[in-house]
Amino acid sequence: MSSQQRPLADPRPDEYRILHEADLRDYLAGLPAIAARLGGEPASWSIIEVGDGNLNLVFIVRGTAGGIAVKQALPYVRLVGESWPLPLSRSHYEYLALTHQARLAPGLVPAVLHHNEGLALVVMELIEPHVIMRRGLIAGALYPNFVGDIATFMARTLFFSSDLALPAAQKKEGIAAFAGNHALCKISEDLIFTDPYREAEQNRWTQPWLDATAAAFREDLDLHAAISRLKLKFLNAPEALIHGDLHTGSIMVTEDSTVVIDPEFAFYGPMGFDIGAVIANLLMAYLASAGHERSPGERRLFEVWLLETIENVWTEFSHEFLELWRTESHGDAYPLTLFPGTAGAARLEAERQAYMARLFGDTVGFAAAKIIRRILGLAHNADFELIEDAKQRAVCEARSLRLARAMMVETFPTIGAVTKAAREIRGWQPDFAK
Amino acid sequence: MSSQQRPLADPRPDEYRILHEADLRDYLAGLPAIAARLGGEPASWSIIEVGDGNLNLVFIVRGTAGGIAVKQALPYVRLVGESWPLPLSRSHYEYLALTHQARLAPGLVPAVLHHNEGLALVVMELIEPHVIMRRGLIAGALYPNFVGDIATFMARTLFFSSDLALPAAQKKEGIAAFAGNHALCKISEDLIFTDPYREAEQNRWTQPWLDATAAAFREDLDLHAAISRLKLKFLNAPEALIHGDLHTGSIMVTEDSTVVIDPEFAFYGPMGFDIGAVIANLLMAYLASAGHERSPGERRLFEVWLLETIENVWTEFSHEFLELWRTESHGDAYPLTLFPGTAGAARLEAERQAYMARLFGDTVGFAAAKIIRRILGLAHNADFELIEDAKQRAVCEARSLRLARAMMVETFPTIGAVTKAAREIRGWQPDFAK
Repeated sequence: MSSQQRPLADPRPDEYRILHEADLRDYLAGLPAIAARLGGEPASWSIIEVGDGNLNLVFIVRGTAGGIAVKQALPYVRLVGESWPLPLSRSHYEYLALTHQARLAPGLVPAVLHHNEGLALVVMELIEPHVIMRRGLIAGALYPNFVGDIATFMARTLFFSSDLALPAAQKKEGIAAFAGNHALCKISEDLIFTDPYREAEQNRWTQPWLDATAAAFREDLDLHAAISRLKLKFLNAPEALIHGDLHTGSIMVTEDSTVVIDPEFAFYGPMGFDIGAVIANLLMAYLASAGHERSPGERRLFEVWLLETIENVWTEFSHEFLELWRTESHGDAYPLTLFPGTAGAARLEAERQAYMARLFGDTVGFAAAKIIRRILGLAHNADFELIEDAKQRAVCEARSLRLARAMMVETFPTIGAVTKAAREIRGWQPDFAK
Repeated sequence: MSSQQRPLADPRPDEYRILHEADLRDYLAGLPAIAARLGGEPASWSIIEVGDGNLNLVFIVRGTAGGIAVKQALPYVRLVGESWPLPLSRSHYEYLALTHQARLAPGLVPAVLHHNEGLALVVMELIEPHVIMRRGLIAGALYPNFVGDIATFMARTLFFSSDLALPAAQKKEGIAAFAGNHALCKISEDLIFTDPYREAEQNRWTQPWLDATAAAFREDLDLHAAISRLKLKFLNAPEALIHGDLHTGSIMVTEDSTVVIDPEFAFYGPMGFDIGAVIANLLMAYLASAGHERSPGERRLFEVWLLETIENVWTEFSHEFLELWRTESHGDAYPLTLFPGTAGAARLEAERQAYMARLFGDTVGFAAAKIIRRILGLAHNADFELIEDAKQRAVCEARSLRLARAMMVETFPTIGAVTKAAREIRGWQPDFAK
């Protein structure tokens, strides 16, 4: 049934309904720019649902001329079902965030072709021939351009939405514009900052090997104090418009190109949460790598590259962020007029370095939180999940938990100290594996 | 001319216009509850404009039965004139803040009787027989109930709008509701955190005696780094709904009663800004006191009381805030489930103490900032301004600046360390006075 034949009793085009293939085909056929981009007759378009995330429907639509991706929010958490409702408005925030990111980091996010707020739907360019980075890392692939791209993405999206770049009025408007995305924030507040540290129905871990560690983490008051401070910062520090879910499953890559997707968790929060997410997921890829080895040492080069990449993510991010601060500082924070002359410039530079040291501390803490939630909480990582031997998986996970605990309660002054600890823990055997 | 006789061409009642006496009389006569409260014929009401603040019109209206206060925002800064426009919306935020405060700290703010957003007008109960606290302190009066009242006001308004008391969604809604008050925030950002530390047309100070100190403060990079960190916190830390202008000119007192007025600068900001404002203004009252002595030692008792009061403001605030946290912690921060049993309770208490230590550090820094802006910036304090002998005034101000600089760049672990420094500086003579 084409849209022309739709009876009057049908829902209006922008009234929310879950789109199925035929309905989506009709809808897209009614958008001339999209139809032209696809090419050919609507009936000939191939439509497949590919969403492997936790929350939404994702369709890939191809015509004779090209393809598009269509993302539609569901009124509940897909991973859990209708028992866990979730507002459709997250599609609006994703659209806002994509627009912000496209302006600041052009080429590093998918172009938005169409947005329908009522349908909670975003139509984007199809990112090809990219793969989800997490899948590539599990296969042991190296991505030489990744560091530069992700450093640029983070430095530009974070700096330009911060008080270092924006007048306070504009920043406050931005905070208000994203304040309504609190249901998505709440997921992070619960699943990252609370549940893994207490009895919670949705927690799971690799049993029986991690039972003792999971129990120890539920009793570990040093950890509970540290995660509570991080949670307070997550609730209370609108430093910049953050992506909010920047793991390697939200990054698509080829050897030459990096595209960041899925910013539906975006809000004004602490910058270290995004940087920490990237570093956490690379650390997990590193410590999961042993579980994907088919012969000893097979993934040595990959693992060396990963540790270098982790170091470079921070180093290059920090470099780019500082360079933006030195050259594009039009915000209300740290006014240049208070730091005149050579002595003033030197003092401001010292303040910048102190700011980055504080941000690095946040980053390490948030990275640790992101590791722990992926091993003891609800949502797990394919990096570990695809290790078939459950005991071997538990070894990799136990190493990750040991590293994360240290990152959360000890002091790591440099990213080199983090990768050094990761390298050492790579060689550590938990008691159950001895 | 009564409202019945108003020609059609007149502005609608809620279209903004600056109210003059006759117009206000008509307007109030049209509000039955207000007219009843005043009593008698509208023509018999006495109306006087008493605004001595920097921004608004304030009328006191009295009838045969009672009185009211009427506050109307002007579309510009009254202190400066029409060349400095300021949004009328501040009246809306003041109304919102008064409502919040009245709910949380009943009896400690004026009851709102009527609000007209279009006219940027709030009608409140008349606070009698109170005086502006600053005037009382200049006269050397003691207010035995003040500490308990202001501690309660701050502890309750701050705690109950924080992440310790509120679910994150509600807190984010609050932040968004006040985000539009950025023009008032901008005044603080410029006049408190920036201008006193650089050449700015509106700066003034007691010349010639403070010329050297003002110049030194404009060159003092330790101070500039410290004030920039405080400014970043002011921009970036929506910890609670703060009053935003909590000096002793915003507090009305009798011996028995304390009423906090004028929260038009309210927004979600750092708690230490409110607490610091109270402490700063008491420190200035203390260091100005010598300038109001008519005979040596005449104000000794008053000064002893002031220092005790300063200590008790922090101690009692801290006590009440902690007690609320222990008993009414329904917010998303520091979930109780992460601190189970006796050991958990002890650890959470240690976290609370660490939180208060951090908040005390903020408080000292913001207090210092509030002192400096009142001596080197645009808006000065009657505490100093009413010291007729300019050189004597400069001595009091120089002591305050010396204390404030130390508070901003050194570490004061306790409120006792602050009052000790104040007491010592009270006996210090600047070079120009020797």
